[in-house]
Amino acid sequence: MRGPGWQLCKQLITRRVHSSSYALKEVELTSVRYPDLKRGPFGRLTDSDVTHFRRLLGAERVITEDLDGYNTDWLRSVRGASQLVLRPRSTEEVSAVLRHCHERRLAVCPQGGNTGLVGGSVPVFDEVVLSTSLMNKIIDLDTNSGALVCEAGCVLETADAYLAERGFMMPLDLGAKGSCQIGGNVSTNAGGLRLVRYGGLHGTVLGLEAVLANGDVLDCMSTMKKDNTGYDLKHLLIGSEGTLGVVTKVAISCPRRPACVNLVMLAVRSFEDVLSTYQFAQSQLGEILSSIEFMDGASQECVVNNLNMSHPLPGHPFYMVVETSGSRDTHDEEKLSLFMEEAMQRELVTDGVLATDVGQIKSLWQFRERIAEALLGDGYCFKYDISLPLNAFYEVLENLLYSDGNIHLNMTTRDFDAAVLSKIEPSLYEWTAQHGGSISAEHGLGLKKRNFIGYSKSPSAVALMQQLKTMLDPHGILNPHKVLPDN
Amino acid sequence: MRGPGWQLCKQLITRRVHSSSYALKEVELTSVRYPDLKRGPFGRLTDSDVTHFRRLLGAERVITEDLDGYNTDWLRSVRGASQLVLRPRSTEEVSAVLRHCHERRLAVCPQGGNTGLVGGSVPVFDEVVLSTSLMNKIIDLDTNSGALVCEAGCVLETADAYLAERGFMMPLDLGAKGSCQIGGNVSTNAGGLRLVRYGGLHGTVLGLEAVLANGDVLDCMSTMKKDNTGYDLKHLLIGSEGTLGVVTKVAISCPRRPACVNLVMLAVRSFEDVLSTYQFAQSQLGEILSSIEFMDGASQECVVNNLNMSHPLPGHPFYMVVETSGSRDTHDEEKLSLFMEEAMQRELVTDGVLATDVGQIKSLWQFRERIAEALLGDGYCFKYDISLPLNAFYEVLENLLYSDGNIHLNMTTRDFDAAVLSKIEPSLYEWTAQHGGSISAEHGLGLKKRNFIGYSKSPSAVALMQQLKTMLDPHGILNPHKVLPDN
Repeated sequence: MRGPGWQLCKQLITRRVHSSSYALKEVELTSVRYPDLKRGPFGRLTDSDVTHFRRLLGAERVITEDLDGYNTDWLRSVRGASQLVLRPRSTEEVSAVLRHCHERRLAVCPQGGNTGLVGGSVPVFDEVVLSTSLMNKIIDLDTNSGALVCEAGCVLETADAYLAERGFMMPLDLGAKGSCQIGGNVSTNAGGLRLVRYGGLHGTVLGLEAVLANGDVLDCMSTMKKDNTGYDLKHLLIGSEGTLGVVTKVAISCPRRPACVNLVMLAVRSFEDVLSTYQFAQSQLGEILSSIEFMDGASQECVVNNLNMSHPLPGHPFYMVVETSGSRDTHDEEKLSLFMEEAMQRELVTDGVLATDVGQIKSLWQFRERIAEALLGDGYCFKYDISLPLNAFYEVLENLLYSDGNIHLNMTTRDFDAAVLSKIEPSLYEWTAQHGGSISAEHGLGLKKRNFIGYSKSPSAVALMQQLKTMLDPHGILNPHKVLPDN
Repeated sequence: MRGPGWQLCKQLITRRVHSSSYALKEVELTSVRYPDLKRGPFGRLTDSDVTHFRRLLGAERVITEDLDGYNTDWLRSVRGASQLVLRPRSTEEVSAVLRHCHERRLAVCPQGGNTGLVGGSVPVFDEVVLSTSLMNKIIDLDTNSGALVCEAGCVLETADAYLAERGFMMPLDLGAKGSCQIGGNVSTNAGGLRLVRYGGLHGTVLGLEAVLANGDVLDCMSTMKKDNTGYDLKHLLIGSEGTLGVVTKVAISCPRRPACVNLVMLAVRSFEDVLSTYQFAQSQLGEILSSIEFMDGASQECVVNNLNMSHPLPGHPFYMVVETSGSRDTHDEEKLSLFMEEAMQRELVTDGVLATDVGQIKSLWQFRERIAEALLGDGYCFKYDISLPLNAFYEVLENLLYSDGNIHLNMTTRDFDAAVLSKIEPSLYEWTAQHGGSISAEHGLGLKKRNFIGYSKSPSAVALMQQLKTMLDPHGILNPHKVLPDN
């Protein structure tokens, strides 16, 4: 555990205008939906470019048809118009591709599992999609230290399964684990469900390799926990969302898989009780706490209705999921049952269900992990992911829950609605900034939030980011219209 | 705990040419000891500069006499020839000072507690010393999250005492805690004794403020654990050893002080047994392990002789210190005694002593923390701090311990001896690089190791570091001759 962390930032309120499931239709083009966006002064793809790429990669890894899956994001909220997808298999190929794009001023959208939630992982206009999916080899695991070295395209769940067989685990876990790739996780600084215990990627990534915009390979590989030799460049790439370079390899510190894991789902009466239970869990469970999340009742209704699942504790206003991981089961179970008992006695918690075997634990986690998927069943989902100091949560409690609250973190409508959007933004961001929070706790900025960066970062910091971008990508070809604000 | 980390990198072998204590004499000037070093094309300090600084700070915070303590490092291994020390009290003052130095091309050496071990914290020639000692206010502690905000000049031990009264602790602990400052810790990415549990500063620093070479204030303050809005610039400053900016404020995530702490010192027969005990402790103690260190017998003899201390387990070839921190004392004690028992049964450990109260724990820690101080009593100390993959440790065991080993991590001589130095460097670094290790695990590069950066970092990475330096400090005034290699 890296301190008394908190991550009460997700699924705070769910507002659903429609509750019935909704059939998929084609997503509006980003260029149409956001008419203010202007394509940059990039080169236009020619037949000779395509021929060049075919020579580099072979024809079967240069894709020019059926690109909808590459152009559309998972949320079905944005759609680019790329005509070309490239699927390199090695760092050298990525380097050769980018060298050509740099010379020809062709814009590029690096893409991993395409599970991002802010429109960062798909093209905006006609950027060439550079997919890392075929770079999915596990290169090495040091079973003494737990240092895993793998290519960027490894799927998180696949890597975790590989580690499980060897007594280790990935230090991060996300709902999207079945599709998301390590390279994308690192590029977006994905947080996930176990940050409270294992810390974020700035702490767990030991080294990486990336290809810069001009095709140069930046080698920052290391498997050492401790290496204090010069500026730690890997951090520039972590969370830069593919705008400074394409991550091609990652070395990451993997903890030993705990001997025993337990999970409780709790029903809670009020948001105030959620916060108290959170604090109480921190003090009682301390070093064995591996995850603590909460969800509101509307999110659970949505999961039940849209995914046809049966809820173990139906009809409560709030829920919490508390997971422990430790080295001795008797100790952990004793701590956890003591915590449950006392939380009940103090009337913080009204009901609860405990899971101790792997199957039960997995099925309870679904009620948290599949919220995003369930919300999509409603149609369009406006998605917000803010973090706030705990005391600000208390302060605004009334405003959030008991007034007719104009602040919603997940709001679904049948279709995208610009009028609804303008009611949420930028007022939600202003309010978050006033309370010292972050407008994007873990989703990143991507396309959708780039112009709101000023609510969470100072002008001096944004100016330096622009300088870095210009230095590393002078033609601005890497993932244009993402992260940094217009102008 | 952030995974099965290891930090077997310290005090591996101690070779002492002389064992008697040694009286201090004046340290040779760095410019004399290292005749190849050339002063850069910097401005020369004039009376009008001094007058300007007096106007900015007031006469009593502009020091021009008795500068020996500012010019000489703690190891008494390098000595600069600065004529001027400035002691600003605020970020604004640091900014005004640097703006003037930038205009006048005056080189600057930022200085915290001056406890660095690689000659990074003192001037090489006549750099102006910019001391952060008077910027020592604690600004805020969020008792919900443990986020501490303080000025760069706060002494680590003072900050920890402040936190202790409020149920928290600093996430790092060093032997130098009584003098070292947070700003210096962050600038050098100090590791310390509890990295295995709480992770490094790239994980625990939440935000910072720094003044760049031209006087611009870079505001990267945040107290959020999760904030994914743009490039995470604070990491550029962490570990840049004052060459990219002067850190003026820090926000850091502080864990709750554990309810119970226990410590054992173990006597171990061989280095192989040290490694086995290390692995065994990881598996048995898991999440309650808060520190694990080892020392060789020579280091302990040196502590006993030079500091007049009485050793609890005299005469063993190796020692380990294993600390646990947890939330329930009965659980922790049970785990620890089980670990001790089994380690004895397996004959990994030949003797041991347990400390459970604060006083005992503190006094046992001295045998680890005061090694550096004790070594100084011998005269000159050649200090190396490498990290290696565990399997490399095994491989080179014979070479390290049972041959007449030309590889020494701490070697003391009566005086500095260039012939001895040339026997160690660069062969130690070559060997470390061959085994995939780092030539500086936590001490940094400073003056002494800057030209060896290539053994741990790729040419592409070093080239990008140079680009960053040029971008952020075009005249190269910040801590010249440190971190980056000559040319």
